[in-house]
Amino acid sequence: MPEVLFPLDSAKRFADQQLVGHNRWHPDIPAVVTVRPGQSFRVHCREWFDGEIHNDDSATDVRDAPLSIVHALSGPFAVQGAEPGDLLVVDILDLGPIPQEDSGPLAGQGWGYTGIFARQNGGGFLTDYFPDAYKAVWDFSGQTATSRHIPGVSFTGMTHPGLMGTAPSAALLEKWNRREAAVRASDPDRVPPLSLPPLPQDAILGSLTGAEFDRVAAEAARTAPPRENGGNQDIKNMTKGSRVFYPVYVPGANLSVGDLHFSQGDGEITFCGAIEMGGFIDLHVDLIKGGMDTYGVAENTIILPGNIPPQYSRWLAFSGISVSTDGEQRYLDSQLAFQRACLHAIDYLTKFGYSPEQAYLILGAAPIEGRFSGVVDIPNSCATVYLPTEIFDFDVRPSADGPTRINSGGGAPTAKF
Amino acid sequence: MPEVLFPLDSAKRFADQQLVGHNRWHPDIPAVVTVRPGQSFRVHCREWFDGEIHNDDSATDVRDAPLSIVHALSGPFAVQGAEPGDLLVVDILDLGPIPQEDSGPLAGQGWGYTGIFARQNGGGFLTDYFPDAYKAVWDFSGQTATSRHIPGVSFTGMTHPGLMGTAPSAALLEKWNRREAAVRASDPDRVPPLSLPPLPQDAILGSLTGAEFDRVAAEAARTAPPRENGGNQDIKNMTKGSRVFYPVYVPGANLSVGDLHFSQGDGEITFCGAIEMGGFIDLHVDLIKGGMDTYGVAENTIILPGNIPPQYSRWLAFSGISVSTDGEQRYLDSQLAFQRACLHAIDYLTKFGYSPEQAYLILGAAPIEGRFSGVVDIPNSCATVYLPTEIFDFDVRPSADGPTRINSGGGAPTAKF
Amino acid sequence: MPEVLFPLDSAKRFADQQLVGHNRWHPDIPAVVTVRPGQSFRVHCREWFDGEIHNDDSATDVRDAPLSIVHALSGPFAVQGAEPGDLLVVDILDLGPIPQEDSGPLAGQGWGYTGIFARQNGGGFLTDYFPDAYKAVWDFSGQTATSRHIPGVSFTGMTHPGLMGTAPSAALLEKWNRREAAVRASDPDRVPPLSLPPLPQDAILGSLTGAEFDRVAAEAARTAPPRENGGNQDIKNMTKGSRVFYPVYVPGANLSVGDLHFSQGDGEITFCGAIEMGGFIDLHVDLIKGGMDTYGVAENTIILPGNIPPQYSRWLAFSGISVSTDGEQRYLDSQLAFQRACLHAIDYLTKFGYSPEQAYLILGAAPIEGRFSGVVDIPNSCATVYLPTEIFDFDVRPSADGPTRINSGGGAPTAKF
Amino acid sequence: MPEVLFPLDSAKRFADQQLVGHNRWHPDIPAVVTVRPGQSFRVHCREWFDGEIHNDDSATDVRDAPLSIVHALSGPFAVQGAEPGDLLVVDILDLGPIPQEDSGPLAGQGWGYTGIFARQNGGGFLTDYFPDAYKAVWDFSGQTATSRHIPGVSFTGMTHPGLMGTAPSAALLEKWNRREAAVRASDPDRVPPLSLPPLPQDAILGSLTGAEFDRVAAEAARTAPPRENGGNQDIKNMTKGSRVFYPVYVPGANLSVGDLHFSQGDGEITFCGAIEMGGFIDLHVDLIKGGMDTYGVAENTIILPGNIPPQYSRWLAFSGISVSTDGEQRYLDSQLAFQRACLHAIDYLTKFGYSPEQAYLILGAAPIEGRFSGVVDIPNSCATVYLPTEIFDFDVRPSADGPTRINSGGGAPTAKF
Repeated sequence: MPEVLFPLDSAKRFADQQLVGHNRWHPDIPAVVTVRPGQSFRVHCREWFDGEIHNDDSATDVRDAPLSIVHALSGPFAVQGAEPGDLLVVDILDLGPIPQEDSGPLAGQGWGYTGIFARQNGGGFLTDYFPDAYKAVWDFSGQTATSRHIPGVSFTGMTHPGLMGTAPSAALLEKWNRREAAVRASDPDRVPPLSLPPLPQDAILGSLTGAEFDRVAAEAARTAPPRENGGNQDIKNMTKGSRVFYPVYVPGANLSVGDLHFSQGDGEITFCGAIEMGGFIDLHVDLIKGGMDTYGVAENTIILPGNIPPQYSRWLAFSGISVSTDGEQRYLDSQLAFQRACLHAIDYLTKFGYSPEQAYLILGAAPIEGRFSGVVDIPNSCATVYLPTEIFDFDVRPSADGPTRINSGGGAPTAKF
Repeated sequence: MPEVLFPLDSAKRFADQQLVGHNRWHPDIPAVVTVRPGQSFRVHCREWFDGEIHNDDSATDVRDAPLSIVHALSGPFAVQGAEPGDLLVVDILDLGPIPQEDSGPLAGQGWGYTGIFARQNGGGFLTDYFPDAYKAVWDFSGQTATSRHIPGVSFTGMTHPGLMGTAPSAALLEKWNRREAAVRASDPDRVPPLSLPPLPQDAILGSLTGAEFDRVAAEAARTAPPRENGGNQDIKNMTKGSRVFYPVYVPGANLSVGDLHFSQGDGEITFCGAIEMGGFIDLHVDLIKGGMDTYGVAENTIILPGNIPPQYSRWLAFSGISVSTDGEQRYLDSQLAFQRACLHAIDYLTKFGYSPEQAYLILGAAPIEGRFSGVVDIPNSCATVYLPTEIFDFDVRPSADGPTRINSGGGAPTAKF
Repeated sequence: MPEVLFPLDSAKRFADQQLVGHNRWHPDIPAVVTVRPGQSFRVHCREWFDGEIHNDDSATDVRDAPLSIVHALSGPFAVQGAEPGDLLVVDILDLGPIPQEDSGPLAGQGWGYTGIFARQNGGGFLTDYFPDAYKAVWDFSGQTATSRHIPGVSFTGMTHPGLMGTAPSAALLEKWNRREAAVRASDPDRVPPLSLPPLPQDAILGSLTGAEFDRVAAEAARTAPPRENGGNQDIKNMTKGSRVFYPVYVPGANLSVGDLHFSQGDGEITFCGAIEMGGFIDLHVDLIKGGMDTYGVAENTIILPGNIPPQYSRWLAFSGISVSTDGEQRYLDSQLAFQRACLHAIDYLTKFGYSPEQAYLILGAAPIEGRFSGVVDIPNSCATVYLPTEIFDFDVRPSADGPTRINSGGGAPTAKF
Repeated sequence: MPEVLFPLDSAKRFADQQLVGHNRWHPDIPAVVTVRPGQSFRVHCREWFDGEIHNDDSATDVRDAPLSIVHALSGPFAVQGAEPGDLLVVDILDLGPIPQEDSGPLAGQGWGYTGIFARQNGGGFLTDYFPDAYKAVWDFSGQTATSRHIPGVSFTGMTHPGLMGTAPSAALLEKWNRREAAVRASDPDRVPPLSLPPLPQDAILGSLTGAEFDRVAAEAARTAPPRENGGNQDIKNMTKGSRVFYPVYVPGANLSVGDLHFSQGDGEITFCGAIEMGGFIDLHVDLIKGGMDTYGVAENTIILPGNIPPQYSRWLAFSGISVSTDGEQRYLDSQLAFQRACLHAIDYLTKFGYSPEQAYLILGAAPIEGRFSGVVDIPNSCATVYLPTEIFDFDVRPSADGPTRINSGGGAPTAKF
């Protein structure tokens, strides 16, 4: 196990730790520590809501989730010699829930959660159909997850960091703020909003204090979206053994990481859709000097996924096209097509006895695959969602015998506004 | 080998065969033959352009591709006892290029093609960046494809039918025509168009003649888009061994199939983006009576993919977000995010010596995977495209040594308007 | 489809074809045709017993199987320029049952068979426990096999040639004959025998006639065992897409092929244990000049298995050690350990309702894996046999609920001496 | 992380711990702790030689390895309610090297080793060809292993316990001792010996003392071989996520575990052939009451391997037959056939610049597969060994260009008697 360079004490809030991380993006957040190219190190990560979501049978915490505090990020880690234009090479050596702590109030202490955000506080991919808050708590046994709120399903976690990225330059940050303000301005009262503005409230900015804190807090970008620096990409295939190449925009690169997921389906469709947890991640960093130009990388990441994801060989897939549920034809809209594919999967699973919300939570948390199948056949995109059949305790395939009916239990806890 | 119920003579045009198929969707196109539930049968399929694209080093045929004649579909096959509300269960027992014909002028006779359509005639996923026509010809050796127009790459075909589906009911057809007209009306002069209207020109409607032909030709839907009946889904995972469940909308179900692909990447991004071929497909059909209601299926297909796709274990992935190349922020637009991911992959591959068009053609034809990675992190969708590293003759991964330079040959043939 | 260089007429016996193959190994069997390095060609193959085993519900044909006539081999194919010391590179482009012939009396016409040889005529891996003859007939549907004699199991065939190899030199043949005579001499009356001597009776030697036929028939080696030239290796992983490197011992290499298997488990444990069939195989040949020395190959083959085997991700494994069923300790005897592992698997499967012979036939024909697990832990070898759980219609895993009982039907047909 | 029920202090010898394990099999070794069915717990494991093999560049420690002290086993763990005739269900929740200890003198502290035992002290699968001792030290980075003694190769560890099993009954122990004495008596002076007798010297027997210690030490079986209780099976597929079913022979079952391997090839062919390490293993236990009879299990284990082994999709395989290197024909001897396959692989790898010993060590430690390919084709067994091509930094496949030559470095350290 490599040396812990960013430790967290599970008994303390994220802002009260020995080393304080951050929950906004800004080039002027100071690095917490400097590492060498070729160095391996361990980082502790707090779950994204810093302990506000509980291991209980109520969804009020998800309904009222304090979006202003996310994401609790560990770092930034400065890399010696990194300069703008380099590629930062990050190997994910290992990651997992909080070691040595098998129970406790923090997600990652032997358990995690998946939430459906309410439309009025966060929303999600299918918020038009699921406007209320729901929660499922998952128990970890080794790398296997099961939930008392969703019977009949268990799976091996495709564990990964939801969020990792380098710090933006001042120019890049300014570009983010400008373009995101523009889209927000096109429908400023929308619920949920089209984007999130900088928000000083609840900002955590490492060691910054005073006026510098205030300036940075007013400018810093929210961490919700993925951007040119990687960030909240939620790429479930960035499992143990993966190598990720990030553009370097500031001296030192200033890498940060957080939002660990015990498991997640492609898309993380319920927004709070992975199995959220705190834990550890072991990283190894290196540099390709001048690599952005050498490899034609300006504003994206490159990933070499690891070779130890959970293996599934049998899938059940559902198609969707870009026609809305009220019959409107959209032009090659894969976002909509994937929504329809997911809705079809949910409709199907309810025939086996699941509530629609349970089915939605499964799609968010289990290692489903979401694929762009056809993106050119005007006017319809075709998207597909693949469920591994082996995660169900029963035979989930269609047959002449009709669906097995499971006992869905009490369903997932919910809370309305 | 099951009995051939729909034979094709490679020396004759599609409309001149013993049994004539169709290239439009309409409930009143008569079935060419009736099969029993439980029956297996072989179907010959003509490549989608009925021989208009040639095995040569010019792209004028792709530039001038006669879109009015696609897709050459084999069928309809009526299934005894099928009634609206049933699920039609179709097993893809086998498929491949034209057997016993290893050379000749028809795609499928030992070769196939991938095209980039010109913006003025078809367009494609990245037509804003690739407005001209290009073509690559692929040679088949067993299940392996290589191209004299794209050096350094070879792969095992993920062979599948691009298009299969049941006939629409009159009501469903009317719904299609209405909604597609509506979207087209929103920008009627757009090039390429937002959708395609019914087009009597070049319509092939099986055995219909005279006034009935004219009526149906005027009403029938084009085959380009996937719709509630399946249709042109271009799901590359519908390989040999797959089972597909289709909604039944008309008595007999009236299944049709065509547009065989020797290989394709997720999305079929160049529009003419698979390796197109004619060939054969062996099907087995069965029914789940009342299955649409039993399984909650109204307007989609369900797929159990086969267990013999080509295996790849090492991938190189690129991310993209929903910001346009000119910097505009779009709201959770996965279509755009996937475009950006593909553009990033193309930029990368050009550093190894490929022309941008060669790289684009690889993404269309090779077994790449396109994934919805994040679809909720406002305002950015995150999409990813995965290339199997083993398809390249050289090491395609980033490293401190910089990219290997291949000799790209003369590039892919092109033709401008 | 490449040109057919070795055609077979299903209506005629193997010795009565236009081109006559062979069923013995000898350097002086003339090549039937000469191919160029770089050439692709199709070869028809007769099932190994030339039609003597029937699609019926009796096992008398297996009991009385004429071992003197095996294996019906297609070839030899001479390769231009091949010289002793080269490596012959053989790509298996494609293979399958007899095309265009979905029913008929020949295995490969839509069906195949697995037999358990009687101890008195062939024997097998577990002949001490299964001394009588049994047979199962399998029906092919696409690449899937099912058997009316073994309910509850179906699987995708791992199709491969059981036997392929180059001709031995005269010196190598002499070595074979000498060493096999020596082992036979150690227990000359054993049933089944320790090895098989040259046997002029029923020898087929291509175009040879007269005295030359008689000389060669008296010297030629039987085809049952694998040897330095490849031969009857029964390597189930030599599926479509594989590349095999053979030592060249005679000018022209003189490659022969036969004994196609629709499917087989590791070991082909019932001797007649694959799903035997006739069919076709498409080959591409090339040479590595001087490759035997360059790559340190003197008396073995090298294989690059193809990347489209059937995928299974869930296995049920049984261990065995090198202690005989009557309690005798053997020293690191993996052959015995694997027997014990297979017997344990059979014992287990009988608890689900299979007869022991049905279980044995499953292990012979289905894509099971047989592994050397521990080969050094004195005095016990540990061998393991892995069954893919997905081939069973029921849940075959152990649980507190106890085994599901299937209806084993009438069992597999048997015949006693 | 479950509760640690068997802790080890890395600073102390195995016999000096708070809870003392054992290194012999005997029913009267008292359980160290009792667990409940359904309970999860963590167990620390010492590497099998209790720290006698060092992280250095000498092989004298391997040459002189004290075989009398192996294997250091953690346990026995008694399971409440377990009775003879039950099946003990053991889930391997997780395992790995020593947590929190990234460097230090104990294998498992960030490193491990593979040894070739000298013929005079242990021997191994190919001891006739490799009579001297060799060693390779491997460094761990996440789940990846590399060695300064073997350049050009790196791989993801297929981590598993080499040894796990239940205690034998007195009758079973007596059977072991009798049959192993019998085989030893057949060649009592053989080096290495045919089996190992009970050996009081260096015996560790948990809490036993005095006369009871002496009695048990004189009777207890050595731990080297796998037997009916599982034991030293060295099944590399028993990775994280596996479920293993063990026969219960004594009240409480008395499960023990040890000999953790960071990686191993099928067969563990160099005897000390895995990457040996100490570490932790998290287990969950349950019972199937009466399961031995219910499932037909008397003297073997059943394994459901986990679904997160490292994935490899490209292999390079070598065949071998049961003819000795001096030309003697053996009858269906798969042990010999596998030796020959391994020797062929070694010959091949030396052409790339490896020393024979480096190649041998790779086969022992890397995730190679060893298969029974043909076991019935008299007189030759055919065995195959599969190397994943992706573990090499260079292209290891044969081609017309000839092999790449690597710099083998100084080779693996050796020591002669």
